[in-house]
Amino acid sequence: MTDITKMCRKGINNLGVYAPGKPIEEVKRELGLEHIIKLASNENPFGCSPKAIEKIKEEAENVFLYPDGNGYYLKQTISEHYNIKVSQIILGNGSEEIVHMIARGFINQDDETIMAVPSFPRYETVTRIMGGIPTQVPLKDFKYDLPAIASKITGKTKIIFVCNPNNPTATILRKDELDEFLSQLPQDIILVFDEAYSEYVDDPQYKSGLTYLKEGYENIIVLKTFSKIYGLAGLRIGYGISSPQIIDILNKVREPFNTNRIAQKAAIEVLKDQEFVNKVRKENSKGRMYLEKAFDKMGLEYVKSYTNFIFVNIKKDSKTIFEKCLQRGIVVRPGYIFGYPQYLRITIGTEEQNEKLVEILKQLL
Amino acid sequence: MTDITKMCRKGINNLGVYAPGKPIEEVKRELGLEHIIKLASNENPFGCSPKAIEKIKEEAENVFLYPDGNGYYLKQTISEHYNIKVSQIILGNGSEEIVHMIARGFINQDDETIMAVPSFPRYETVTRIMGGIPTQVPLKDFKYDLPAIASKITGKTKIIFVCNPNNPTATILRKDELDEFLSQLPQDIILVFDEAYSEYVDDPQYKSGLTYLKEGYENIIVLKTFSKIYGLAGLRIGYGISSPQIIDILNKVREPFNTNRIAQKAAIEVLKDQEFVNKVRKENSKGRMYLEKAFDKMGLEYVKSYTNFIFVNIKKDSKTIFEKCLQRGIVVRPGYIFGYPQYLRITIGTEEQNEKLVEILKQLL
Repeated sequence: MTDITKMCRKGINNLGVYAPGKPIEEVKRELGLEHIIKLASNENPFGCSPKAIEKIKEEAENVFLYPDGNGYYLKQTISEHYNIKVSQIILGNGSEEIVHMIARGFINQDDETIMAVPSFPRYETVTRIMGGIPTQVPLKDFKYDLPAIASKITGKTKIIFVCNPNNPTATILRKDELDEFLSQLPQDIILVFDEAYSEYVDDPQYKSGLTYLKEGYENIIVLKTFSKIYGLAGLRIGYGISSPQIIDILNKVREPFNTNRIAQKAAIEVLKDQEFVNKVRKENSKGRMYLEKAFDKMGLEYVKSYTNFIFVNIKKDSKTIFEKCLQRGIVVRPGYIFGYPQYLRITIGTEEQNEKLVEILKQLL
Repeated sequence: MTDITKMCRKGINNLGVYAPGKPIEEVKRELGLEHIIKLASNENPFGCSPKAIEKIKEEAENVFLYPDGNGYYLKQTISEHYNIKVSQIILGNGSEEIVHMIARGFINQDDETIMAVPSFPRYETVTRIMGGIPTQVPLKDFKYDLPAIASKITGKTKIIFVCNPNNPTATILRKDELDEFLSQLPQDIILVFDEAYSEYVDDPQYKSGLTYLKEGYENIIVLKTFSKIYGLAGLRIGYGISSPQIIDILNKVREPFNTNRIAQKAAIEVLKDQEFVNKVRKENSKGRMYLEKAFDKMGLEYVKSYTNFIFVNIKKDSKTIFEKCLQRGIVVRPGYIFGYPQYLRITIGTEEQNEKLVEILKQLL
């Protein structure tokens, strides 16, 4: 018998084996729980704009028709929202798909990419899939270490990924740090700003990659998503903004119908409903303050968060605490998977969810 | 200024430039049409199961939550439907995404793939994206020419794509032809059966790749979709069935949340509602017979169709006729894009749509 596994591309062998997880409904059944609070995936606990829900119900009748492969109306809405050209926008099946597209478009065998660790893990995966070599630079004080990243640049460096704010640590880079980094960056390196959580940030030191793009940098790609503050994680819709030249290349490797019909329609509604977004941002700040106070009282250290999640040092084995939380009906993200065995990454929930979380953590710690 | 376009992967340069199309709503406005009949993309004019529409509306409230990345319940439903193992199934954002995954998983620089032309164009695109070399073998009598394909196999051949029924010609391969082809096929070549239209086929000579899989071939991947007879084109959901070894590799290159929440839920409903599928199949047969008779009367030759579309020789320039049809409110697919300048590919519509189409073609031809 032929060994099929030997037929796959070389880089694939370095990728982790896929472990299918169980849906939350199955976990509930197995643990005999009626209700589970999910604070593990940084979703928006306040849901999405009610206008989007209405639109989804309306559009249900049309699902037999292909989506508009070009995303005409959604791209127009995004273009107006940021005052950028439509030719600067690409839509993705989540911004995650755009990370894949960037790799497909630019990474040759043995090309190098640089990213921090821990950060969003897909930058490494897509590099390996395309036969590239990822260089992972440790965080410094839970933040992207830009000078260390700059020092790793070689003649083979093709792409640098910067997750800002960073997942899982919830930190941001200051604009002076970024300005300096960019002033030294060779123009033939693509700098990807993954700004999935940018809408939560309320700090004058934060500078979006969009501003750099508008300042004239053509080698920048900014990734945004509707999965976080906009509350559409389940629909898979995100977008990238860059120079028209880069967008052209990404379109060449894009699947023609990569974003679905319902997602396109809903995304237009959520983007237009900034009132809802402002409400969520405010509620999230309140929740963050509540949790910070609670952690202070419990003597737990945490990384100052600029997002809708907190990276907290529980000073105990995160895997054990994760499991005990789960048995009590609450799911968080254990830090050992990020290389921080005593941390938890906790999504900020609704008031009720946050209170329940604190109550359980007090019992366990 | 750095020329960014020179930074992309070599294979990408060979891909066509992306030409953004306008959504049908814009075309309507420009032409001053109230209504457009779309017979261009082989969608299901009867829509999808009403049970799926209900489920979509129900699930609208949950779009803030990520989908189940593993598609647990949908894979269970597919597994029961075909009596295969869950480990033999992979879900895709349309079966088209799985074509991409196969390329990402298996095609190295300069690996060869073989497919017919004209056929579904993505087999060629994904090969080029990955730096592979596509060998395109002309159809014979509008059908895949398996002996010619076999003769093109070299030591570098990695994948053979067989679209059965074939798009755009609506033909099928007979089981004796396939049996012979498979008996000679080296086991280290992956044979992809794209069966997007298989549910429309009602012919004892048709043999699905699934049957070969069950007979023990491990190097076969069968692609199925919910976009055609199941009427969920807008949601982007399809699946692949293969040996667990191949599925494992595809899972390594799969995006963790590649299929959306609404699509997963709706797909379960449509797959269970086989009564609806049977009704569609029957209506489609009636429509096909109606169009065949009408074409006969008009003296137009057509390729015998086993699907929900017909490839018809209009003996005039297809681009001109396409445009004239459009002005009259009907969209079809002109054959020149497939290398058949005097053909149209026409989706079989509802009774009313078919009558309108015939009326317009009579005027124009």
